[in-house]
Amino acid sequence: MPYRAPVSDYQFLLDHVVGFDQVAATDRFSEASPDMVGAILTEAGKLCEEVLAPLQRNGDLHPARLENGTVRTSPGFADGWKSIAEGGWVGISGDPEYGGMGLPMSVTTAVNEMMSSACVALQLAPLMSQGQIEALEHHASDEIKSLYLPKLISGEWTGTMNLTEPQAGSDVGALTSRAEANGDGTYAVTGQKIFISWGDHDVAENVCHLVLARLPDGPSGTKGISLFLVPKCLPDENGNAGVANSLKVVSLEHKMGLHGSPTAVMQYDGATGWLIGQEHNGMATMFTMMNNARLGVGGQGIGIAEGAYQHALGYALERRQGKSRHGNTIAAHADVRRMLTTMKAEIFAARAIALSCAIAIDMQTATGDAEWAARAAFLTPITKAFGTDTGVDLANMGIQVHGGMGFIEESGAAQYARDVRVTTIYEGTNGIQAMDLVARKMMDGGEAAARLLDEIEAHAETARTVFPDMAEAVWQATESLREATEWVAAQDDMDDRFAGAVPYLRAFARVLGGHFHLMAALADKGGAREKLARFYIARLLPEHAGLLVHAQSGAEGLYALSTEELVA
Amino acid sequence: MPYRAPVSDYQFLLDHVVGFDQVAATDRFSEASPDMVGAILTEAGKLCEEVLAPLQRNGDLHPARLENGTVRTSPGFADGWKSIAEGGWVGISGDPEYGGMGLPMSVTTAVNEMMSSACVALQLAPLMSQGQIEALEHHASDEIKSLYLPKLISGEWTGTMNLTEPQAGSDVGALTSRAEANGDGTYAVTGQKIFISWGDHDVAENVCHLVLARLPDGPSGTKGISLFLVPKCLPDENGNAGVANSLKVVSLEHKMGLHGSPTAVMQYDGATGWLIGQEHNGMATMFTMMNNARLGVGGQGIGIAEGAYQHALGYALERRQGKSRHGNTIAAHADVRRMLTTMKAEIFAARAIALSCAIAIDMQTATGDAEWAARAAFLTPITKAFGTDTGVDLANMGIQVHGGMGFIEESGAAQYARDVRVTTIYEGTNGIQAMDLVARKMMDGGEAAARLLDEIEAHAETARTVFPDMAEAVWQATESLREATEWVAAQDDMDDRFAGAVPYLRAFARVLGGHFHLMAALADKGGAREKLARFYIARLLPEHAGLLVHAQSGAEGLYALSTEELVA
Repeated sequence: MPYRAPVSDYQFLLDHVVGFDQVAATDRFSEASPDMVGAILTEAGKLCEEVLAPLQRNGDLHPARLENGTVRTSPGFADGWKSIAEGGWVGISGDPEYGGMGLPMSVTTAVNEMMSSACVALQLAPLMSQGQIEALEHHASDEIKSLYLPKLISGEWTGTMNLTEPQAGSDVGALTSRAEANGDGTYAVTGQKIFISWGDHDVAENVCHLVLARLPDGPSGTKGISLFLVPKCLPDENGNAGVANSLKVVSLEHKMGLHGSPTAVMQYDGATGWLIGQEHNGMATMFTMMNNARLGVGGQGIGIAEGAYQHALGYALERRQGKSRHGNTIAAHADVRRMLTTMKAEIFAARAIALSCAIAIDMQTATGDAEWAARAAFLTPITKAFGTDTGVDLANMGIQVHGGMGFIEESGAAQYARDVRVTTIYEGTNGIQAMDLVARKMMDGGEAAARLLDEIEAHAETARTVFPDMAEAVWQATESLREATEWVAAQDDMDDRFAGAVPYLRAFARVLGGHFHLMAALADKGGAREKLARFYIARLLPEHAGLLVHAQSGAEGLYALSTEELVA
Repeated sequence: MPYRAPVSDYQFLLDHVVGFDQVAATDRFSEASPDMVGAILTEAGKLCEEVLAPLQRNGDLHPARLENGTVRTSPGFADGWKSIAEGGWVGISGDPEYGGMGLPMSVTTAVNEMMSSACVALQLAPLMSQGQIEALEHHASDEIKSLYLPKLISGEWTGTMNLTEPQAGSDVGALTSRAEANGDGTYAVTGQKIFISWGDHDVAENVCHLVLARLPDGPSGTKGISLFLVPKCLPDENGNAGVANSLKVVSLEHKMGLHGSPTAVMQYDGATGWLIGQEHNGMATMFTMMNNARLGVGGQGIGIAEGAYQHALGYALERRQGKSRHGNTIAAHADVRRMLTTMKAEIFAARAIALSCAIAIDMQTATGDAEWAARAAFLTPITKAFGTDTGVDLANMGIQVHGGMGFIEESGAAQYARDVRVTTIYEGTNGIQAMDLVARKMMDGGEAAARLLDEIEAHAETARTVFPDMAEAVWQATESLREATEWVAAQDDMDDRFAGAVPYLRAFARVLGGHFHLMAALADKGGAREKLARFYIARLLPEHAGLLVHAQSGAEGLYALSTEELVA
């Protein structure tokens, strides 16, 4: 079954569940009417169905390769990139002053998700550029902005982010790359960076690297890191890609999946770069890009889940085995039906969470309101971790639906599982996301969390008259989550929070999923969305209880078993 | 970290948890003293560490390939097979009359698990032979037995099972392969079979296929299928591999993992075969092999989980990132520690379940007791499904522990996840296992289940004085499971059982895991096993509650959403 963009799903969510009307009511996004958004999504959907989806297997079968120092991308990827760029899909949320569409992140989120379903290996390229565009819009000088933003937004050039070094992964502060002032306003950047997605390629004429490095007077740790823009080719006097900079691709990684995305080891040898943001403040600056990318990576997980779901559903509706009163394809079998319905229900939950996170970002952008900012910050790690965990789980379930064929690469089911596997790791592992949630995002004593829980309970109260059983289930789950949230926020020893951070985050996502499904049921009383909500609330939501027990178990029992005892 | 065979773990389980003493007390297995078993496991462990583990990457990087109709296996596999065969590890439980060691299945289960950790792609070969040996011992004529069993047990020849056809997967009864009597006691077998593991190879001199096919007068459906032994080379007058039979390998599959195991499409063109068991009774005969293989495949899942665990632990203890009072490797981080401890606790649970299933088989073999037979039958689908689900989950967790390196094939973490993926599918998908559990294995009205639950509760009662909190948690969980079991057994409409079969099976495994952990804690009071039990019972056991809600949700809400609504 070829990929079909679920445009009406996004529209339903925007219109009835996540409150896009608030965004459209702001001055900033006043042009984003429902009609306009519908047209945009339809157009993007067409691109994904017709141009990008046919490239997905190419990327897997013909990985990007390094030839004499130059990266050659998979067959068709250059044309795919051109279509993305010319459609304006790199700069959907980019500043119109520099050629962007200026649309809300909620629209970008839907478009990015569709591109991920269709061909995630290629979609990672615009995702990286989008993060860089946002970072430059916020932190670069006017000169840099007018030189780079039009090129990045138009897709003539692409962007990357360079954080990781062999000895510095999650512990970014341990990096050893360094930069020194050249005396002319530029810097000489030296060091090796690994895991650089789309670090080099042949689909556009220049690659702009955002590189973290330390200045000679930079204190040790994360507080002494600065951020530099280091282009592959230095801009000439007309602002076009000119002579080569002092950097090179050392090698490309051989990965489990995402073969179409070139993952480079980059070497910088006194490469010319420009400081972005303040000296020693590079981590904060980079976080603009990271947060954007975290929402984006969550969307990749959801997008791949959708792709895997459609693929499995197509197979299940064609594959005949046995016969029952429900039909003669495997979709009629209770357990296959359970898997398919679970996939649909989980995608809805994860998608609603991601879109509500994007809405919060849009409201923050449009109003500058601190509560919206806190909401966006709180939902970002949940979106990233739950979106990608859902991607991994559902891609695996998609294989299972295929039975023996799922293990055969020809069927295409396995590629989803291999491609999606990195999403729970990059842009901060899901463990890091969960730690972020229970520590940094609860530095307010749990206030942002409590406000969200209040809203969910208030909504459940209003739903009681229509769906008393579902409303009660969501309300009770929220109360349990509130209790756990208060427990987490009260722990002074961070290890007690961290010990159960991952189950806590998952439980939060579970309850949010229940909330959004309940909203969908109210908007589609008696329809398919009510039935899906009933499935989710009766069968999947109960998972939260066990997770919350785990979440409140603390560090003592965790560290009781020593590493020696783990080995023995 | 190179693989280390966890011999002391098996010994602890056999001696203190699963009751191997009962087996050793029988006449049949009176030679299997603890010392003898210890020596056997140590010897097998050495083979796995020194000979098989080094082959694992070879299989992945250099898949078996088809050359001019002949399968060439991965480098080193032929020598690996020779070591397995010469060590007697194919025929551990084989009849001594034909050269087997005659040891209990509980010992074979431990040995097979170790071989799976070390090199699962190769281990699949002896696993298939073992199933065939058991099937022939039970159902073949004396002539066939004395011709084939010595060859299979010594590893000079290997065995396969041929069920699946392109249109007949889980629905075996839909097969179209046919057999006709030749008039001389042999049969001419014709048809195409797919997914034949080790269907051909160059590691031994003959391949014996057990093939399901229909005789001309065989009724349609599963009740009209017969089983035939069809060797690649016909035995000559001295019983050695002689002239080629009329069968060939059409192609090998390109799979997600298990590259070292040749998965063949087999074509039989009037190939000469011998009837095994009664006419039209092939399914029942084949089930001897299937049940053996199901326990074995569960063990593959556990073995791969163990391999992935050791690999991840080794990485976590070497990789330095950040620093805390707990240490300066990532194993000191709370969330990494959570993953590692979860892996260890889950492996213990799954392994205890598999060994207790094997013990029941041994007791059934030794005593012929119907209650032991029922116990073995009940535990087989749980062992298979929970063992392999644990394999998939833990291999994924192993990748996660590795962070970015987990996605890079070089690290070896990804191979475990790719290799293990088929185990939840072959020998009956885990959905099929769960259906088997709630239907066939509850045809007794839930009596076998109830007896097991009684034992668990009785044990929890005796544990109360020592570990009141853990005992209470296990007892309560068992009560919830009993309630759910009674609900399941009371459903007349099988779809109501099937709708929640998978979560029901998982909940049952969860509770069994709690039971076995509690036993381990009692045997190691104050030691590492008590700490691990506390971790499992406090943090992982609570999952059962949500699963049991799901298990009792019935079919109505499941089928409420039509396939059209799933597509929309």
